[in-house]
Amino acid sequence: MRPLVFLSDYGLDDEFVGVCHAVVARIAPGAAVIDLTHGIPPHDVLRGALVLAEASRHAPENAVYLAVVDPGVGTERRGVALEAGMSLLVGPDNGLLWPAAEALGGVRAAVEIPLPPGASATFHGRDVFAPAAARLSGGEGLTDVGAAVDPSTLARLEPPSPEVRSGMLRCAVLAVDRFGNVQLAARVEHLERAELDRAPQVELRSGLRAAPVRRARTFAEIPEGEHAILVDSAGWLAVVRNRASAAEALRLAPGDDVVLAAPGFG
Amino acid sequence: MRPLVFLSDYGLDDEFVGVCHAVVARIAPGAAVIDLTHGIPPHDVLRGALVLAEASRHAPENAVYLAVVDPGVGTERRGVALEAGMSLLVGPDNGLLWPAAEALGGVRAAVEIPLPPGASATFHGRDVFAPAAARLSGGEGLTDVGAAVDPSTLARLEPPSPEVRSGMLRCAVLAVDRFGNVQLAARVEHLERAELDRAPQVELRSGLRAAPVRRARTFAEIPEGEHAILVDSAGWLAVVRNRASAAEALRLAPGDDVVLAAPGFG
Amino acid sequence: MRPLVFLSDYGLDDEFVGVCHAVVARIAPGAAVIDLTHGIPPHDVLRGALVLAEASRHAPENAVYLAVVDPGVGTERRGVALEAGMSLLVGPDNGLLWPAAEALGGVRAAVEIPLPPGASATFHGRDVFAPAAARLSGGEGLTDVGAAVDPSTLARLEPPSPEVRSGMLRCAVLAVDRFGNVQLAARVEHLERAELDRAPQVELRSGLRAAPVRRARTFAEIPEGEHAILVDSAGWLAVVRNRASAAEALRLAPGDDVVLAAPGFG
Repeated sequence: MRPLVFLSDYGLDDEFVGVCHAVVARIAPGAAVIDLTHGIPPHDVLRGALVLAEASRHAPENAVYLAVVDPGVGTERRGVALEAGMSLLVGPDNGLLWPAAEALGGVRAAVEIPLPPGASATFHGRDVFAPAAARLSGGEGLTDVGAAVDPSTLARLEPPSPEVRSGMLRCAVLAVDRFGNVQLAARVEHLERAELDRAPQVELRSGLRAAPVRRARTFAEIPEGEHAILVDSAGWLAVVRNRASAAEALRLAPGDDVVLAAPGFG
Repeated sequence: MRPLVFLSDYGLDDEFVGVCHAVVARIAPGAAVIDLTHGIPPHDVLRGALVLAEASRHAPENAVYLAVVDPGVGTERRGVALEAGMSLLVGPDNGLLWPAAEALGGVRAAVEIPLPPGASATFHGRDVFAPAAARLSGGEGLTDVGAAVDPSTLARLEPPSPEVRSGMLRCAVLAVDRFGNVQLAARVEHLERAELDRAPQVELRSGLRAAPVRRARTFAEIPEGEHAILVDSAGWLAVVRNRASAAEALRLAPGDDVVLAAPGFG
Repeated sequence: MRPLVFLSDYGLDDEFVGVCHAVVARIAPGAAVIDLTHGIPPHDVLRGALVLAEASRHAPENAVYLAVVDPGVGTERRGVALEAGMSLLVGPDNGLLWPAAEALGGVRAAVEIPLPPGASATFHGRDVFAPAAARLSGGEGLTDVGAAVDPSTLARLEPPSPEVRSGMLRCAVLAVDRFGNVQLAARVEHLERAELDRAPQVELRSGLRAAPVRRARTFAEIPEGEHAILVDSAGWLAVVRNRASAAEALRLAPGDDVVLAAPGFG
């Protein structure tokens, strides 16, 4: 059986995730389900898409990805199942699956999953996506769970691009993790293009605030009370502190606009 | 092996749930455990009972339900295991298992689980219920884990009933989910009996507050800033908004009293 | 295959835990992973160590413990795998594994896990510890995942000891659980040595606050509004209320200093 990798914005305080697990167990007894995370902020399709894409580098190659961040549930947006590399992906056609499919080698085939009779209008995770993923996990093929659609008609989604100039990099905050590390929508290549990669220190600006930020490779090397920028384990730039929350100290939250600049720039 | 479906009010911040998993793995290696939810509000037997009953519609028919919401732990209240339909249920005899057993076809047999020697006075999930559920999962029968008791002596529990009059429906808030959707202790049949089911809009009153609420089928069809009432995926009426929290906007919390009324009623 | 018992301070809001699960599934398909808890407060090695040690009393004897609370990630601190009793333990060499290894019978052998090529500097859970634990789960031996090191060089960690005098016991707050129960770094033997074990009531002091605390065996026997001290399911003394939060009422948090004293002491 193919392992299921399950991501959603359902949280774990309610029973939504557990009910989807129950549905999978009923259709595909013994299927292994890996809960990637259910802590995606409600309705945040971009965040879900990026986490799914990154995780696809680490999950079993034959995985079935079940992903549900679905503000359009009950509307005309399609439910789809995709084949990419040796993996399959199931979820709403709102861009959520796109970056992971790209990371896995691109969409080779796609089907639209029909609404089963009696499906609710508000919980397609339970009624549409988990059942389809369970059947794929149990060995059924893509066309067993839906009718083929042209992959070129699928909704696409790209991560936000940073603005790069000599001495300046402007980007969005992608996420803040439990430790208060601030993940930015930029990679080390952008720092290089901004000619900031060799600077031992840059200035971080957000709104009216500014703070010096040094380069670091690990948390432990950052002196107490100071901020640093490092390449995080997913390859994004991140603003961090040592055993303390950079997000709290700098009052940064997902979606915020951040500038990294050479000291004295602008 | 029978799959275990595990619900509790233990939360996931502490190790209580993980320790119960460890106990199950020690007694019944390889048993599949489905975590339905551990986010039941502390000591909220009614909420746990309703979530368990609803989930029983979706779980494998041969499941063993392990449910622990147990404010009376350590007192004379019994620990029991029940047979209902093809399923088994294990937990405290405080009403928690009753609605699920009813949904599964009614209790056919019941046993009282004795306290094992050395059992703690405060963590029967670990010392009494998980061990019994693990043994049932592994193939033992009901009478292997306890002595038969008369099912008519079991504690019962019924969901709160709404008050229905022509043009008015009064009910309790059952739950608020992660998205801020407000689940009410009423079903569409009550709306019909109140002759409110065909009204395109009703008035929601709670305390001194009142707000117009339209009927909807999906979240996406609700105009921004407006409230709607829909039938949620568990069959309850729910007050919701589109990509926003109705609970926050209307300041509603579980246990609150809510009235749905025809405009101008009363 | 050996079951994995996984503990960390990663929380469940982010994808860290799920990615480690994905890595395990890739290396050891079908390995059973028990999530003991991921709610250890960030960087709290002592708390993680005590929870792991207590859980080792309940987990399968052949378990592989995967534990990650690792503020020194990326520094010179070693990653290690240990053999203790019939169990194996994998994690950073910062004391986190020590109390569990002791509880399992003491370290019989130890290896240092080398950094795989391309390992990140910030996420050894994914790149170092989960892969090693997965290989051990799949049947490899300790020396397959690293080179032997002298167990006497391992970092050790002991729980904080209470200060005991006749009529007085001073100790730290170890943890506050979801129900507001306050776990103390003291056991009933310390109460006995302080000659407080037969007192029907003692006085709890913390900072400028004092409250009478009775002895109890169960939550349900504590009168409403009163506090009690009982032996919790892990064997620690705990200050509790019946269906209410002692931590909130007494404003106690982990790390706080608490005195239990005979009425009128000092």
